[in-house]
Amino acid sequence: MSKLVHSLADAIRASGLQSGMTISFHHHLRNGDAVLNMVLAEAARQGLRDLTVQASSLFDVHLPLLDHIRSGVVTGIETNYMAAGIGRAISEGVLQKPVVFRSHGGRPAAIESGRVVIDVAFIAAPASDAQGNANGVLGSAACGSLGYAIPDAKYAKKVVIITDHLMPYPLTPHPIEETDVDLVVQVDSIGDPKGIVSGTTRITRDPVGLTIARYAAQVIEHSGLLKPGFSFQTGAGGASLAVTQYLKPIMKRLGVTGSFGLGGITGYLVDMLEEGYFESLLDVQCFDLRAVQSIRDNPRHQEVSATRYASPSAKSAAVNSLDVVVLGATEIDTGFNVNVHTDSNGVIMGGSGGHSDTAAGAKLSMIVAPLFRARLPIVVDKVLCVTTPGDTVDVLVTQRGVAVNPARPELRDSLKQGGLPVFDIEELKNMAERVTGKPALVRPQGRVVAEVEFRDQRIIDRIHSINS
Amino acid sequence: MSKLVHSLADAIRASGLQSGMTISFHHHLRNGDAVLNMVLAEAARQGLRDLTVQASSLFDVHLPLLDHIRSGVVTGIETNYMAAGIGRAISEGVLQKPVVFRSHGGRPAAIESGRVVIDVAFIAAPASDAQGNANGVLGSAACGSLGYAIPDAKYAKKVVIITDHLMPYPLTPHPIEETDVDLVVQVDSIGDPKGIVSGTTRITRDPVGLTIARYAAQVIEHSGLLKPGFSFQTGAGGASLAVTQYLKPIMKRLGVTGSFGLGGITGYLVDMLEEGYFESLLDVQCFDLRAVQSIRDNPRHQEVSATRYASPSAKSAAVNSLDVVVLGATEIDTGFNVNVHTDSNGVIMGGSGGHSDTAAGAKLSMIVAPLFRARLPIVVDKVLCVTTPGDTVDVLVTQRGVAVNPARPELRDSLKQGGLPVFDIEELKNMAERVTGKPALVRPQGRVVAEVEFRDQRIIDRIHSINS
Repeated sequence: MSKLVHSLADAIRASGLQSGMTISFHHHLRNGDAVLNMVLAEAARQGLRDLTVQASSLFDVHLPLLDHIRSGVVTGIETNYMAAGIGRAISEGVLQKPVVFRSHGGRPAAIESGRVVIDVAFIAAPASDAQGNANGVLGSAACGSLGYAIPDAKYAKKVVIITDHLMPYPLTPHPIEETDVDLVVQVDSIGDPKGIVSGTTRITRDPVGLTIARYAAQVIEHSGLLKPGFSFQTGAGGASLAVTQYLKPIMKRLGVTGSFGLGGITGYLVDMLEEGYFESLLDVQCFDLRAVQSIRDNPRHQEVSATRYASPSAKSAAVNSLDVVVLGATEIDTGFNVNVHTDSNGVIMGGSGGHSDTAAGAKLSMIVAPLFRARLPIVVDKVLCVTTPGDTVDVLVTQRGVAVNPARPELRDSLKQGGLPVFDIEELKNMAERVTGKPALVRPQGRVVAEVEFRDQRIIDRIHSINS
Repeated sequence: MSKLVHSLADAIRASGLQSGMTISFHHHLRNGDAVLNMVLAEAARQGLRDLTVQASSLFDVHLPLLDHIRSGVVTGIETNYMAAGIGRAISEGVLQKPVVFRSHGGRPAAIESGRVVIDVAFIAAPASDAQGNANGVLGSAACGSLGYAIPDAKYAKKVVIITDHLMPYPLTPHPIEETDVDLVVQVDSIGDPKGIVSGTTRITRDPVGLTIARYAAQVIEHSGLLKPGFSFQTGAGGASLAVTQYLKPIMKRLGVTGSFGLGGITGYLVDMLEEGYFESLLDVQCFDLRAVQSIRDNPRHQEVSATRYASPSAKSAAVNSLDVVVLGATEIDTGFNVNVHTDSNGVIMGGSGGHSDTAAGAKLSMIVAPLFRARLPIVVDKVLCVTTPGDTVDVLVTQRGVAVNPARPELRDSLKQGGLPVFDIEELKNMAERVTGKPALVRPQGRVVAEVEFRDQRIIDRIHSINS
């Protein structure tokens, strides 16, 4: 009756995993994750083939995955994000079948509806008891929230916990619950703490980034949303983080206490919680050590599942209560469509993550980006890949000015009255091109190597290989 | 898009509730609950008929339910427990269709498998935000754990939160999550705090009860289970509680720290947690104010769902890790079958609750009961109703001696060596009959008014009406 098995090899055998099946992984261990690689290595050793990897995200620590693709062990990939090393190989056509990209909210919706069937979920757990009650806040590979793994645990046919920190029953907290777990295996190490979370995340010191952040904070101030109960999400990029630095004095001056900060959480949002700028944090993923400590110790810093974070099929998700989200872009076009899947050459180097979910949910979705990057304008006629449709994007903030979606004329008026440098998005495009020149069009023309499935299940774009 | 509606009448209409459907309720407000009555009164007002009430338990505060049965508003009842007032009416035949009795673990298993379909779950919530994140630890009707409501929230087609304490979004903790909630309605009061939890639960002062409790503690001591990591559940009855009083000095003397206390939680188990006798409590229901305060304030006092508590279809439940459970009985027969559904005349006055779940799960399931009650022996040839099958019951403890299930000869030997007065169960029966005389057989012979569904889905007994 024990769930505890002696080795990963035993766990894979006991799970009933067979060639052709779908296996899932979460990405909370980020670039320190050892679990995806060890599972695929053992699956290869056992002669399994034709597996589909259903991963919430893939990092370049997972580059050995490419060998398993070449050898036929892995023939399908579904994910919400893919780092540049793996992305380039996909763009070069290493995988026959197109990758399916979803969003952090679309993935749990697809799992819960049964459109995605996970045969075996392998859940890297920084701490677990022998019955599979597991959390991410204890142990040497502590990563904080396990939010993305929760739908996998609830819906996979078989659930295997892989841990390096076995604790006495009953372990608490237990975002992953014994009711859902079939097998538990202890290994030497599930990952390298140095790759799991950065020691601290850093606000940019780049003057361009700081100017963008200052404008972004002013946009929030004049959006009409900065009032008691204000809620906010920002990414972990340096410029996005800098928005918090400019937002704090504005909130203080206006006497605004926010209700919640959402999303991937950094120490900067933890500071805002502790300093009383927000009543609570809802955390689907921790980006740094301070966030990990806070989610462990502060009851107002709450772990949320991917479903609660962003699922479009949930009766409501936190993104539906979100006032403002600050997001990045590699490109944005004059229809406000945003690309974070590829670089400006069309090579895969990212994915939506929660980009399209938060843009759809938030009352104000704001893109912050430099007007040009490496002599390429950020505003283009048509993005190479639509990650987030323009009708869910409200405003673009650059160091030279701000453009408001024409669907939001009242917002445009408020920002103008607030003294912000407001332009049409075509004007921003022209400004950029005056500096960089009009770039040569590069659009990969090869076969389809990836499909972008929007949170409503529509395929909203396809990515082509760079080799024709 | 708001889930908040103005009145219960609006909530019922918006839920799509129609005649013939199944509605569910939880019983954490116990004999103080106002929600079941207000929902049925409004359903009657709206002309709905032929409803099935799927309630985790029914108390005598719910006696107005009988009028709704008589008028045809309610034509089906499924529950895990029924207090004596409602039970007598059922035994008298007020309801045409047999009641379906399940256990606290069997109910979530039936809901999760789809055998029980809940059309609308009405969840009494001591605190909720406008999106339906709800808990039982705040507000004037605070009841502590909401564990029995969690499967209803997860699986009902529509979920309505009824609260008298609306709080800002996002409410934490949130055992009931917005992802599962359709509608939220605020009412003046969801219940009477005096009926929800007793101020304190009391240990018996009756010398018979104390003798039984002392023997029970000695049985645990000599069972071989009282070692580090020991886990324990006991009921809230005076004699069951008294077991803790005798167990504490034994645990202290042996230097045993237990892992967890389970189940319905009282202040006595909270004391044991705080005094270091147990590492944690797993709480599906709070019986008194001290338990409510503790689950709110002590992170080692954890709320668990009915599924995690006891579901036989979960991949594991807490009862599977339970060492010892102390349970009551109205009757036990010489095959160790236990009745807690009816009194000695066969009239319904209870139900399994977690009785059969914990007996099946625990390594040692112990029945504590006086050898006779009101001049009726507790040990009989054949119980009037099998709540808990004899093959899951290990030992009977009375004030005159202890009987061990013949399937556990090694336990019988250990208890004898420990100096306990061990008898065959027939000997205990004879002892009782020497005092009370052999009672006249009373076995209701009318039509079937209730079916007892064991946790494995088998109907293990039927209860007949007392009017033939």
